[in-house]
Amino acid sequence: MNTDLPRLMLRRFQRQAAEGLGLRDQLCETLRQAIRDGVAAPDERLPSTRTLAQDLSLSRVTVEAAYAQLEAEGYLRRKVGDGSFVDINMGVQTLAPKPAKRPAPVSEIVSKRGQRMLNTGGCMEPMQLQAFVAGSPDLQAFPAETWRHLSQRRLRRQAPELMRYGDPQGRSELREAIARYLVQSRGVRAQADNVLVLTSSQQALQLMALMLIDEGDAVWMEDPGYAGARTAFLSAGAQLVDMPIDRQGAVLDPTRPTPRLIYLTPSHQFPTGHTMSLERRLAFIAYAQRTGAWLIEDDYDSEFQYDGHAMPALQGLDHSDRVLYVGSFTKTLFPSVRLAYTVLPAGLVDAMVVARSIHDGHPAQLMQAVATDFINQGHFAAHLRLIRQLYHSRRDALVGALQQHLPWAPPLTCSSGLQLSVGLPPGSEARLTAQATALGIATPSLSQTYWSAPKVDGWRLGFAALPPERIVEGVKLLGKLRPAKKA
Amino acid sequence: MNTDLPRLMLRRFQRQAAEGLGLRDQLCETLRQAIRDGVAAPDERLPSTRTLAQDLSLSRVTVEAAYAQLEAEGYLRRKVGDGSFVDINMGVQTLAPKPAKRPAPVSEIVSKRGQRMLNTGGCMEPMQLQAFVAGSPDLQAFPAETWRHLSQRRLRRQAPELMRYGDPQGRSELREAIARYLVQSRGVRAQADNVLVLTSSQQALQLMALMLIDEGDAVWMEDPGYAGARTAFLSAGAQLVDMPIDRQGAVLDPTRPTPRLIYLTPSHQFPTGHTMSLERRLAFIAYAQRTGAWLIEDDYDSEFQYDGHAMPALQGLDHSDRVLYVGSFTKTLFPSVRLAYTVLPAGLVDAMVVARSIHDGHPAQLMQAVATDFINQGHFAAHLRLIRQLYHSRRDALVGALQQHLPWAPPLTCSSGLQLSVGLPPGSEARLTAQATALGIATPSLSQTYWSAPKVDGWRLGFAALPPERIVEGVKLLGKLRPAKKA
Repeated sequence: MNTDLPRLMLRRFQRQAAEGLGLRDQLCETLRQAIRDGVAAPDERLPSTRTLAQDLSLSRVTVEAAYAQLEAEGYLRRKVGDGSFVDINMGVQTLAPKPAKRPAPVSEIVSKRGQRMLNTGGCMEPMQLQAFVAGSPDLQAFPAETWRHLSQRRLRRQAPELMRYGDPQGRSELREAIARYLVQSRGVRAQADNVLVLTSSQQALQLMALMLIDEGDAVWMEDPGYAGARTAFLSAGAQLVDMPIDRQGAVLDPTRPTPRLIYLTPSHQFPTGHTMSLERRLAFIAYAQRTGAWLIEDDYDSEFQYDGHAMPALQGLDHSDRVLYVGSFTKTLFPSVRLAYTVLPAGLVDAMVVARSIHDGHPAQLMQAVATDFINQGHFAAHLRLIRQLYHSRRDALVGALQQHLPWAPPLTCSSGLQLSVGLPPGSEARLTAQATALGIATPSLSQTYWSAPKVDGWRLGFAALPPERIVEGVKLLGKLRPAKKA
Repeated sequence: MNTDLPRLMLRRFQRQAAEGLGLRDQLCETLRQAIRDGVAAPDERLPSTRTLAQDLSLSRVTVEAAYAQLEAEGYLRRKVGDGSFVDINMGVQTLAPKPAKRPAPVSEIVSKRGQRMLNTGGCMEPMQLQAFVAGSPDLQAFPAETWRHLSQRRLRRQAPELMRYGDPQGRSELREAIARYLVQSRGVRAQADNVLVLTSSQQALQLMALMLIDEGDAVWMEDPGYAGARTAFLSAGAQLVDMPIDRQGAVLDPTRPTPRLIYLTPSHQFPTGHTMSLERRLAFIAYAQRTGAWLIEDDYDSEFQYDGHAMPALQGLDHSDRVLYVGSFTKTLFPSVRLAYTVLPAGLVDAMVVARSIHDGHPAQLMQAVATDFINQGHFAAHLRLIRQLYHSRRDALVGALQQHLPWAPPLTCSSGLQLSVGLPPGSEARLTAQATALGIATPSLSQTYWSAPKVDGWRLGFAALPPERIVEGVKLLGKLRPAKKA
């Protein structure tokens, strides 16, 4: 069968999920489309229910139900012991007038740079809420009514102005609100003139890579580390130099090739959760000052500190303008707000604004205006307090459930963030993940965040968007797995 | 004085304009900020009122009034016959605690690729409405109330879902609406699966350049042509091969270096307004098919055809999947909606979705949902009919006023679009533009859209956003200029 089928189906499936169909209905519609479009051709064998369930992170029961439904509708024939096939008549009856043509392999049609971008696999975010998908905030807790009212008021009062072209750097009212927030809550040295509003921290990393490095330049990257950053640097042609992580955070080794850029997550290292020590922070700043390297501080999830106080941002320690600070409203407001921010050294502001204008014009004005009001009227601070408490209790629920039901998956660190990394017995991650998938539970891989460093088996369990009962239920289900092969 | 001052001030000035201050107040605030931030240092000489008026496209009266105001406030000292100076005491009284440091020249701190991006100057769109700034639609005519109601309903019904991460390709409901619209109104061969929703046509051009060409690859570019496209290709490292324009559109010369990409505006060549002949369209498609080059069809402004019917898109003639079609809602809805679209050959869809995900994640879901409703409920078609009539009458007002008051500036073509290119006597553009600026009238340059081709002096007069009386008034003012040096 077509080897691209699972991947194509997964993307379509996620899309339908985003549009609110139930799991079984989503899968039915995905399969119908695939058959109608000729992606799955007449008489072609479909993946087994077991395989498909695994690929799509569904339970086999759901896949079985979808196949049965499509058999009833005449899309499929099923033979016990043989498999499920696209009905031979589907080609005649329902294919589009133009027969589906298999496109040329992508490698022949894009540039070398394009191929490099493709090789990274892109940055696909989870469109579905499922235990324990990582990285989603709880959107039920978001004060959507308040947001709607603020949005109404701005549209009523300022409609033509907010519809015009805007400043590529972002509205000054929002840049001022962001600067105030970062100065107060993160100890960042920020003023409105140094803030650049972007659509996502991914865009920030991509524009920084394009503006600051040439192909072949060295970039120091945390290992294990955040795949989105790695993707941005690789797609810009960087030579990555992996930095190992210890309890103090990323390890600085001045004997490695001098970088143009260094990528750090000092508040809450991704994915180990370690906070970088003050000594290490000062060492990186001194190194950057000496060599002229730029430091990117990705301050993701720093708003979510559960035990003790968060350490202020590294950027606030730097008096030599070497740090590019990156933050985002994706987790603190909501992912589709498409607003993130960077605080830039004075000498880089105009350059980054030009880069942004070339790639993306300006950020949407209405969203910026509403976010400004949300912050300035105190809703942002109140919402942060609320979700910090909420996620704190969910973190506690997860830690408790893990202790009780999953003693073989100990948390690595758990004082902050929206996800919790747990270790697994060496060599067991792939097998346990497959078993979890069969139970309908997503367990994002820890080992895949390692590159050169010796891989640690484990999972990154997202908990922020899940009510405590779903957390406990999910962990209980995982408790049925057998950590050792012969347990 | 600081040579960057005019440029920095211009950007700040535009930003304040976007926030709705009057011209004089905007300028006052820009100057106050520049002085407070130390961009203009104590005892520094400011530009003369004449120079600043010219740089900022203001009347001298406005600049004079702003300088007088700041003198009264103690920011400036003015000496007749000598100039205006930042007051010597401003440093002590009002500078921020950290003295302003002149940053290192940008050329030393960005990469070669970054420098190439900077050299293009970026893509700055007009943030102010002024006769005859080009490219702005009329936002007073937009049914903002309808948009607000649709936005309300979606937020009320679907708030958590629309706040989640979305499909990097765009919501399927919007892709379906776009495909239907393009099939019906532009003769594009489109289906939802081939549509990619982006934030702007600029983003489309940039992603195509990055995905399809490597540094040094040849790109054929219309000359004269659209600066935004040129910027995208140059910043991606392209070697540009300029195609001259004749009455049939871009001229195809197969003896030039074979390109990876060809950029065309067949409906309404930018900036000459010529429609590409059928013969020429077929020749480009055949050439692309033979050589494997990609054709980008930028179908900008094709919705605005005033005399006769618009020719269908070139993409509809292509049966070999060589055309990447680009369109945008910037002019048909509003600039800050941040929604544009491309229709891609089947083999490029996944690749472009990956590129988009790396650069920008996904497009904002709420805006997409509201745009879908706006189209599907018939508001889009009605709005297009309305503004087409409105712009038609404004085009007529402009053509009439030009005939009456500006016989020395004949329209080149005038059957479509939001701006009208007029010719000027050879060698007169710079002088006449300076005179127009002194009268407070913006007259975007025609000659600057030419690169290798012999430059044609002229202006690109934007008319769509201006009521007829402002059009006539503006042309009458221009009528006071002297086209020949000794008239």
